[in-house]
Amino acid sequence: MNLKEKIRVIEGFPVEGISFKDITTILTDPEAFDYSITAMIEAFEDVDYDVIVAPEARGFIIGAPMAARQKKAFVPIRKPGKLPAETLTYSYELEYGSDELQVHVDAIEPGARVLVVDDLLATGGTVKAVREMVEKLGGEVVGMGFLIELTGLKARDLLHDLRIESIVQYEF
Amino acid sequence: MNLKEKIRVIEGFPVEGISFKDITTILTDPEAFDYSITAMIEAFEDVDYDVIVAPEARGFIIGAPMAARQKKAFVPIRKPGKLPAETLTYSYELEYGSDELQVHVDAIEPGARVLVVDDLLATGGTVKAVREMVEKLGGEVVGMGFLIELTGLKARDLLHDLRIESIVQYEF
Repeated sequence: MNLKEKIRVIEGFPVEGISFKDITTILTDPEAFDYSITAMIEAFEDVDYDVIVAPEARGFIIGAPMAARQKKAFVPIRKPGKLPAETLTYSYELEYGSDELQVHVDAIEPGARVLVVDDLLATGGTVKAVREMVEKLGGEVVGMGFLIELTGLKARDLLHDLRIESIVQYEF
Repeated sequence: MNLKEKIRVIEGFPVEGISFKDITTILTDPEAFDYSITAMIEAFEDVDYDVIVAPEARGFIIGAPMAARQKKAFVPIRKPGKLPAETLTYSYELEYGSDELQVHVDAIEPGARVLVVDDLLATGGTVKAVREMVEKLGGEVVGMGFLIELTGLKARDLLHDLRIESIVQYEF
């Protein structure tokens, strides 16, 4: 399947100059959604992992079906104030301003082998933060998987030592 | 499986007096997560539907795996500003203040048979809003499914004519 044909590209969202890759048109096409989840799983067929970690909210749409199908643990990374038990909070810089993410401290056991999943790899800032959160809890990130990669933003330079897989690529 | 044993109850979150039902302890237990998705699907085995609709963000963790496994379309309901194409915006009242939700207008075709899914049925305000959004787009809500129902909040009175299923129940 040519998954790019199923992705809707919207120019100027959320701000001028951005060419937004809309995956909701994959989600409403059951064959394309199934193909996407299968391709993400197959990309890491040779990698041993116990846990799939994904940031809210679109990451959940990819990561939760992967975890459910593979019978792996699923750990959601959330914006502050959403997780009820003891959390690790991580602040990181964005191009304009900063952001915070939280994870339950007991969600990742020391030594856990973790796959980080999201719908889109753009600058890589969010998943770099997620990686550092996993490592602070004693887990090991064994790979990162994305449905879409914007190769022109060179996130791989930021994550250079990691196994990274993406299903479709755009320059920007 | 006694799913209640897998749910972590946290008193006083997000505010005093609330006994929060934390499903993240289901998600990190692959057998419990699989059981949950299977139970949700089996609860509607006799219902014919094409589309699963779920509000962000925890609804995605339940709805997306159900849709992927069943090869149904998945439609995310989002907070304002997240969906890039033409949306229907719906404002509704909460106990304190109001909230807004959006759906892509082309995500639900007229005549579509829709299952609404979320992790928790509390007062029912959000899913009542979701139902009205689906109906404005010409879809028919054929049922609503929840992992957890807080029966003491009597959401079924608000949604009285609908088929509602929940896997585990608490009074509050």
